[in-house]
Amino acid sequence: MPVYNFSAGPAVLADSVLNQIQSELHSVNGSGMSILEISHRSALFDDILNETTANLRRVMGIPDNYEVLFMQGGGTGQFSAVPLNLAAKNKKIALLDSGQWALKAGQEATKLGFDVDTLATTKDTKYQQLPTSDKVLTDDEYNYLHIVTNNTIEGTAFHQLPAHGTTKLVADMSSNFLAEEYDVNDFDLIFGGAQKNLGTAGVTIVIVKKDLLGKANNLIPATMDYNLFAKKNSMPNTPPTFSIYVCGLVIKWIESMGGVKGIHEHNVIKANRLYNFLDESKLFNNFVSPQERSLTNIPFTTGNEALDAQLVTAAADNGLMNLKGHRSVGGLRASLYNAMPLAGADALVEFLHQFEKQNR
Amino acid sequence: MPVYNFSAGPAVLADSVLNQIQSELHSVNGSGMSILEISHRSALFDDILNETTANLRRVMGIPDNYEVLFMQGGGTGQFSAVPLNLAAKNKKIALLDSGQWALKAGQEATKLGFDVDTLATTKDTKYQQLPTSDKVLTDDEYNYLHIVTNNTIEGTAFHQLPAHGTTKLVADMSSNFLAEEYDVNDFDLIFGGAQKNLGTAGVTIVIVKKDLLGKANNLIPATMDYNLFAKKNSMPNTPPTFSIYVCGLVIKWIESMGGVKGIHEHNVIKANRLYNFLDESKLFNNFVSPQERSLTNIPFTTGNEALDAQLVTAAADNGLMNLKGHRSVGGLRASLYNAMPLAGADALVEFLHQFEKQNR
Repeated sequence: MPVYNFSAGPAVLADSVLNQIQSELHSVNGSGMSILEISHRSALFDDILNETTANLRRVMGIPDNYEVLFMQGGGTGQFSAVPLNLAAKNKKIALLDSGQWALKAGQEATKLGFDVDTLATTKDTKYQQLPTSDKVLTDDEYNYLHIVTNNTIEGTAFHQLPAHGTTKLVADMSSNFLAEEYDVNDFDLIFGGAQKNLGTAGVTIVIVKKDLLGKANNLIPATMDYNLFAKKNSMPNTPPTFSIYVCGLVIKWIESMGGVKGIHEHNVIKANRLYNFLDESKLFNNFVSPQERSLTNIPFTTGNEALDAQLVTAAADNGLMNLKGHRSVGGLRASLYNAMPLAGADALVEFLHQFEKQNR
Repeated sequence: MPVYNFSAGPAVLADSVLNQIQSELHSVNGSGMSILEISHRSALFDDILNETTANLRRVMGIPDNYEVLFMQGGGTGQFSAVPLNLAAKNKKIALLDSGQWALKAGQEATKLGFDVDTLATTKDTKYQQLPTSDKVLTDDEYNYLHIVTNNTIEGTAFHQLPAHGTTKLVADMSSNFLAEEYDVNDFDLIFGGAQKNLGTAGVTIVIVKKDLLGKANNLIPATMDYNLFAKKNSMPNTPPTFSIYVCGLVIKWIESMGGVKGIHEHNVIKANRLYNFLDESKLFNNFVSPQERSLTNIPFTTGNEALDAQLVTAAADNGLMNLKGHRSVGGLRASLYNAMPLAGADALVEFLHQFEKQNR
């Protein structure tokens, strides 16, 4: 029985990536040493890091006036690092509160002493829509606007970016990094953990305009200091070598799938299989309006807590793993990240179809 | 030809550990999912984390009044986190400056606005001895004394802990974690990255007395907040799941080697093989006095830069990798961490012996 893993992250990896990791685990690039053992100061690792950076630049179309940084600490680490690196305390941070991760980012910046202005929130309607604001934003008033391009828990996504006037745009892309096409030029900073679409946990990618570095006047811990990481090629200290290596393999796999364009098309097909089923179902519902639906995280429910729980168990017995919704919202959720094959989405739809027949 | 990796970190892992990672890479604990793919919120990962914590507690003899935290960012991250979590700005941080990593820790705390008092330094003699101070330390004057138990670059180690009066003792144990026997009760906080003696890069272990948590009044980024990590079982956000898993395997391997006592004895034998050779050699020198010598990092040199460089290349041709000294001090260095087999130390000594015969 094939196993399909619908976890929201850490999440599914392509079989070919796992195969390569496994086959060269004792000897990376014929060195006789494992990727787990090699020094980050070795030529072997230099090659891996530099190739991964170059490939990410190419596959994502990252212009030369952006730095690509490999850091640690995940999105939560960036909730601190972004304001510490980019924000002045005499200006505000604008926030579109589109879900729990946006809210947490705002709370962290507030805790660190920054003035966060929540322009709009959809918290009262359980974040089932994206927030919108007509306010004209200026660089004088705001350090930047923080958005979450894809809301992992709530299943919404900004397929169109919100207007942000003359202020900068910072995007938490953790759950749709390389999963749909965005133009990097539209952002001043993009960050995301690798563990959903780009590899395994332990490394966080930051893409930031070079001219923003070194300007904030805050006390920044070294491991959060973009300027230091830019100067030291992401290695002021030991980087998460293995996680970077896996990232490199995943990026090559993405290129083999037709790049972000190919992956995006594939993700649309997978997501539509599930959304089309849910929209026709009499048992299951997804509450997000079609134009705001996430391609990567699809929450749904029978509306019956006990039945949802029964489904999670029955699905797992059939090799369809981790369909439980986020602990904060309950219900069900299928994450269809880049590495989820179409066969996985189809198997899920078929299972839901049978489950519906048996439980109406 | 066997390959022996003398890298100072990331560093050698036991073959049995690599074999297990490789054999279960596609399916951890029979789950059908890779350790690289499973959610940190899954029962599968909970078991791994809890077992790793329990095993570390047992093998290291960590009392119940200490928390064990798995964090990210390496030792450098802790250079920020320790003062942010433990230090009040109206008291000083005492430092014994025993090497470059002690110096960097002091610099980072200073940068973050703390008052660092370097009690003693051996910088002027290239850190070839440990610094000593007769000053009587009190808890009223100092937040804590920061020491580095093993100096990775300079090859010295505190086998006897320095007196610290009534002030607390914080130890950076990055390069001799579980490599020699210490009594955890002698410390208020111990930290160390996993990538030298305990696994692969990406996870940092912090062992801290529970009654020290939540008392400092500093602005602490969430990913550095000990109290938050303690409350959330090291998972306020996605932890470095794979690196924790590898740690767990290495700790089990250490237990199979007779625990820290067995490893310590093994490390003494390995180190003595090399030190005994160096002390009798007419070509090579190590400059550290015997009672302060590191068991894990052994710097040495011919005193001739070109000859040292020639040796590094010739050694690599013979499968003896990464013998170049740290870029800041030059010369040669062999790191004999826990997972370096005795055969590796012997192969190195034999090679050095032959090299000496050919180059006198």
